[in-house]
Amino acid sequence: MKKAIVLLSGGMDSAVCLYWAKSKGYECHCLTFDYGQRHKKEITYAKKIARISEEQHYILNLNFPWKGSALLDRSILIPFSKTVDQNKIPVTYVPARNMIFLSIAASFAETIGAEAIIIGANAVDFSGYPDCRPVFYKAFSKVIESGTKRGSEGKKINILTPLINLSKKGIIKLGRKLKVPIEETWSCYSGGKTPCGKCDACVLRNKGFAK
Amino acid sequence: MKKAIVLLSGGMDSAVCLYWAKSKGYECHCLTFDYGQRHKKEITYAKKIARISEEQHYILNLNFPWKGSALLDRSILIPFSKTVDQNKIPVTYVPARNMIFLSIAASFAETIGAEAIIIGANAVDFSGYPDCRPVFYKAFSKVIESGTKRGSEGKKINILTPLINLSKKGIIKLGRKLKVPIEETWSCYSGGKTPCGKCDACVLRNKGFAK
Repeated sequence: MKKAIVLLSGGMDSAVCLYWAKSKGYECHCLTFDYGQRHKKEITYAKKIARISEEQHYILNLNFPWKGSALLDRSILIPFSKTVDQNKIPVTYVPARNMIFLSIAASFAETIGAEAIIIGANAVDFSGYPDCRPVFYKAFSKVIESGTKRGSEGKKINILTPLINLSKKGIIKLGRKLKVPIEETWSCYSGGKTPCGKCDACVLRNKGFAK
Repeated sequence: MKKAIVLLSGGMDSAVCLYWAKSKGYECHCLTFDYGQRHKKEITYAKKIARISEEQHYILNLNFPWKGSALLDRSILIPFSKTVDQNKIPVTYVPARNMIFLSIAASFAETIGAEAIIIGANAVDFSGYPDCRPVFYKAFSKVIESGTKRGSEGKKINILTPLINLSKKGIIKLGRKLKVPIEETWSCYSGGKTPCGKCDACVLRNKGFAK
């Protein structure tokens, strides 16, 4: 059975990716990172999704002594979505986050012989993060090809981004078609007990459902 | 003062890189990884080098539930250098190691506004690891350019590999010129109290000194 590493955050998009991977016949190995995120609650949801999907799940701790993001540094406020300048990268950007996640996923993929890494990046209804755009994933594929033993042997570890060109509405439609337990996912950045409804993650999610 | 992240393993090559960076006027922020390596002793040497150089030093823990390398898995023997097939990547290769290190360094660089990441990779007297070759570093530069906020703003985080085309003899000569305390570095893979003299790391080092 072909294997894939699925980056599972606990949010809706990565949950849809997991079910997409299952529908494509992959044996899934889900990776979730506890990287000091303010919305640590998403990890609980990642656990629920992995359990419901009956796929393997690993939670890895990454604790670095720097922050550089409102998601890591509680002294920086999470901005209300409507106040965010659409032409700038918002303060919720986490420096090199997806780069770190993909690198670790590549290590895992190479070790277990997985042929794919699946990530729920989206470049349509998104916060403008540079590491969610196709150009980044294309560049990362070259890194895997040139920097791994598997790549040197001519075997692939493909980075798959099935949601990258979908709208949030499209992601929800796909999730419903794939019977993703969307109610068991968590998107809010703010770290509260209930979704704040005002951060970018909440607003994008809610707009998608409204549409 | 311009800043650099220096990947400092505790081996000779990265120590030479640190002193090279100092000679170029960088304020150095050294990163050492405790990633479950058998030759954990190198970390003690990284600490010594950082202390002697009077630069900042951070030791980060990375513990992943997979291995895939003789450097991580004590059930795999470290091969004697003379028995290693030069046309194959040896079992001491650690899947995606430099990829993970560079990603984390990129996150740190972006957070503190460092303009360079310096790594002691070498593609001359080396063990044939794919992630020590120029093509990998060129590809990784594109990842940083496309996947970071700093890159999106047109600012650079350059990956510098000052030793990549030097022989081991050349590295030692450079180290002596820069007054690197080479006696305070550790190269052996085998994890013993004294260098085994037989692994690739020992043999390459000793040949360099002999020459």
